[in-house]
Amino acid sequence: MKIYFAGSIRGGRKDAVLYQQIIDYLKNFGEVLTEHIGDPELSHSGGGGPTDGFIHNRDMEWLISGDVVIAEVTTVSMGVGYEIGRAVEMGKNVLCLFRPVTGEKLSAMIGGCPGITLVEYSSLEDAKIAIGKFLD
Amino acid sequence: MKIYFAGSIRGGRKDAVLYQQIIDYLKNFGEVLTEHIGDPELSHSGGGGPTDGFIHNRDMEWLISGDVVIAEVTTVSMGVGYEIGRAVEMGKNVLCLFRPVTGEKLSAMIGGCPGITLVEYSSLEDAKIAIGKFLD
Repeated sequence: MKIYFAGSIRGGRKDAVLYQQIIDYLKNFGEVLTEHIGDPELSHSGGGGPTDGFIHNRDMEWLISGDVVIAEVTTVSMGVGYEIGRAVEMGKNVLCLFRPVTGEKLSAMIGGCPGITLVEYSSLEDAKIAIGKFLD
Repeated sequence: MKIYFAGSIRGGRKDAVLYQQIIDYLKNFGEVLTEHIGDPELSHSGGGGPTDGFIHNRDMEWLISGDVVIAEVTTVSMGVGYEIGRAVEMGKNVLCLFRPVTGEKLSAMIGGCPGITLVEYSSLEDAKIAIGKFLD
């Protein structure tokens, strides 16, 4: 199984360690195409080098080839929203993980989308349980 | 012409006055389906009442019926990213307006998408010129 994991880059890297933990867990189920999202060295600028056009087209190729999309949506990110929108329009299975405990407000476009499985959680263990159920 | 205007709601309302000015200008070209985005009374919670599911499905109906999508993408917003992603995947014409002068970082998914017309601007007058060219 090919898994497309989405998390914030330029929207802010405060959840990067959590992304890495989720990605490590996802590897039990298949190949994580976007493993770099969890890299603490990945800068806000998105990787230090490639153009936006390169990043976009590479990520869209991965998204198209992915069997499922799993997004951590707590940190507000235009790119994560874009990826989810494209995935939903492609008819892919999408799991969004959100932590209400942070006080962040989830977009109605994510919270209200019938094509998305939304799970609110607070601990990594809860996220793992949700992922296991989603990928079962 | 039916115009879908996208701007941040729960991602933050600091550009709400600008959204209103852009929407007022867009009315010279056609019907703006999402006129409420510029309403200064619109709260962060997204309108005070309707459920996320209602908001999502109403906005998606508007998006599908829109001839063009015009988004102000300076304030980072998951919902705006989602709307752009769905519109690009639908093959719609999308204009994104971004103000680099704010110091905000634009997502590579927006800056690098070949299906988006991206215009960087600083003044409302520049935005109007870009809109005029795009809708011409």
